Amino acid sequence: MSVTAAQGFRAAGVRAGLKASGKPDLALVVNDGPLDTAAGVFTTNRVVAAPVVWSRRLLAGQEGGQRGHARAVVLNSGSANACTGAQGMHDTEATATRTAGLLGAEPGQILVCSTGVIGERIDMPVLLEGIDVAALALADTPQAGTDAATAIMTTDTVSKEDTLTVGTGAQSWTIGGMIKGVGMLAPGMATMLAVITTDAVLTPQQAQDALASATTRTVNRINSDGCMSTNDTVLLLASGASGTTPSRAELDEVLTEVMSRLGRRLVADAEGATHDIAITVSGAVSEEAAEAAARTVSSSNLLKCAVAGADPNWGRILSQLGTVPEDVCPFNPDEVDVAINGITIFSHGAPQPNRDAVDMSPRETRIDIDLAAGPAEATVWTNDLTHGYVTINADYTT
Amino acid sequence: MSVTAAQGFRAAGVRAGLKASGKPDLALVVNDGPLDTAAGVFTTNRVVAAPVVWSRRLLAGQEGGQRGHARAVVLNSGSANACTGAQGMHDTEATATRTAGLLGAEPGQILVCSTGVIGERIDMPVLLEGIDVAALALADTPQAGTDAATAIMTTDTVSKEDTLTVGTGAQSWTIGGMIKGVGMLAPGMATMLAVITTDAVLTPQQAQDALASATTRTVNRINSDGCMSTNDTVLLLASGASGTTPSRAELDEVLTEVMSRLGRRLVADAEGATHDIAITVSGAVSEEAAEAAARTVSSSNLLKCAVAGADPNWGRILSQLGTVPEDVCPFNPDEVDVAINGITIFSHGAPQPNRDAVDMSPRETRIDIDLAAGPAEATVWTNDLTHGYVTINADYTT
Repeated sequence: MSVTAAQGFRAAGVRAGLKASGKPDLALVVNDGPLDTAAGVFTTNRVVAAPVVWSRRLLAGQEGGQRGHARAVVLNSGSANACTGAQGMHDTEATATRTAGLLGAEPGQILVCSTGVIGERIDMPVLLEGIDVAALALADTPQAGTDAATAIMTTDTVSKEDTLTVGTGAQSWTIGGMIKGVGMLAPGMATMLAVITTDAVLTPQQAQDALASATTRTVNRINSDGCMSTNDTVLLLASGASGTTPSRAELDEVLTEVMSRLGRRLVADAEGATHDIAITVSGAVSEEAAEAAARTVSSSNLLKCAVAGADPNWGRILSQLGTVPEDVCPFNPDEVDVAINGITIFSHGAPQPNRDAVDMSPRETRIDIDLAAGPAEATVWTNDLTHGYVTINADYTT
Repeated sequence: MSVTAAQGFRAAGVRAGLKASGKPDLALVVNDGPLDTAAGVFTTNRVVAAPVVWSRRLLAGQEGGQRGHARAVVLNSGSANACTGAQGMHDTEATATRTAGLLGAEPGQILVCSTGVIGERIDMPVLLEGIDVAALALADTPQAGTDAATAIMTTDTVSKEDTLTVGTGAQSWTIGGMIKGVGMLAPGMATMLAVITTDAVLTPQQAQDALASATTRTVNRINSDGCMSTNDTVLLLASGASGTTPSRAELDEVLTEVMSRLGRRLVADAEGATHDIAITVSGAVSEEAAEAAARTVSSSNLLKCAVAGADPNWGRILSQLGTVPEDVCPFNPDEVDVAINGITIFSHGAPQPNRDAVDMSPRETRIDIDLAAGPAEATVWTNDLTHGYVTINADYTT
């Protein structure tokens, strides 16, 4: 259950033939309304793929449609359509036009996402034929949602979906979503495509505010390898089919929960990883300071290798923490406590004698850093750095 | 030939017994004058080891000596004396005191450097006895210089020295140096200890200015794995024994050349590396902008893996370049050219068809990025990311 969990949505995932492997590579998600509210958060990379340019402009009402409205999303894997120049923009527009024709919509109502190899033109005849097949396969079943989630995978080893229903009976409403991405999980945003659907009644502004807030606190706090992609896109579509209007607080909470779960699935499938690492910095002067410190620690290859080797290496944590500029995150190194998997192994400037007591065998590794400088905290997720990561990224051309 | 190449210096490298391996682990470099000019550049990490605190204070004239003067440097490997609290400071002071006693100097004239495992107290009886042995072994021979360079190695596979003599006859003067460091080569500075000696006649201010300038342009532009250590130290000692006073320009040029060569040796021995990668960004609005862009590209694990896999992956270069903030380094992505090993594979927003022509077999890999935005350029060195790196850093406790 994912993008088809909420009322008012159909989806499909098919084999267009863009991937050499012959695996599914084209997904379609259609919002049947009554509302067609849409919101998006995109990569902050200065080098962006054509579909990112298109979808960003579309949601701003600059592609002939209305600001904050879209009827469908068409997504392909196998090719990122990035660094493809003017031809790439034409291809994206042709993709939207073909999809619109099949759905009785306008091109300016069709969001487009691509993921895969950079710098190669998409095989358009194959893509367009795939869209025809996908349109015929559209269904509101759980299987259709799973098919869509499967078709957006690149080096993902499993498809990633989640859903949450709030309340019961006539007042209930649902959020569901799918996500892909395993490498290039980055400061800013993961190399990820995510489509979230809900049958709540939302205005474009409500959808955009909630999506931006939830993105900041969930997928933007995943930093698998420090690389940011040209194609990162998170979309939220609201059909209004439940007839329920959640409060701002409720919407924020539920959307953040679903996106947090999706992000957790992303971390769990990171390229070659054998440990998922949650770095929580507490005792910071602000949430921003806590996040900056946690993000800095999360980017240490040395620490990531240590965790791969089951070594509770607080030295690499401390030395990395020391590189956070004082004005970004003030703290006194002599007051810092560090715990790994619940065991405090460094306290007030001195190592503790219980390093051997740390159990590094669980896949989930918790690193807790207390700065003793304030009330705020934040958690950033990363992964260990393994031989598997090197193998995947030395052999796979993106 | 290294620290003993210039007139007026003696050195030694001995086995004190700090390393479990029994390899040499204690080095001594003594400046016999007539001058005892000294300068230093240290890690900018907020978590610093006791010897860094000591040496920084000593050069500032805060440990009883004169600002910018020192008689000797004592260096140990096997233990970093970092995160060791007040005891660590006592140990560093005791190290200086013992060395001073043997040389007829004051503790405030003895610089101290340590490298190795963080968070464990140095075995002081072993260290102090090693100092006694080293003092007896002091010599001005090339072998003594090599012994010292060998004794400061940690996971280095070879000792690293270089020397340069300028002019001939009575006007000639010499710079020589040794360096160590293979992991944690970082923004800011490598995990490195370096001692440079010269028989030029230099004032403390001349020495400090030249060292700061050369450090910025050489070892500070090496970014092997993005990690910055707690112990990084570069020292310059001048004996004045040649009687020659070089011009500022000449000093800058020669010191930068020697440090550049030493830095190149560091890169060539980086942990597990199979390729050394020189990333040169040209056409930038300023040298700072060029350096920022080159440094950002150098920190991409995805790119580093691609080079390990002999893949001339311009996509990973472009997507990483796009993460440099516009205000830090302005450029138009559609104007950028990228060449790898002399073959332009991306030009003006579009991939070029000659990717297969790139020969990735040489160890030295040159990535040239022309931003077409200005006149400035800078080069940052990094290494590929290999299985060897993961193995070394998953198994070695720092």
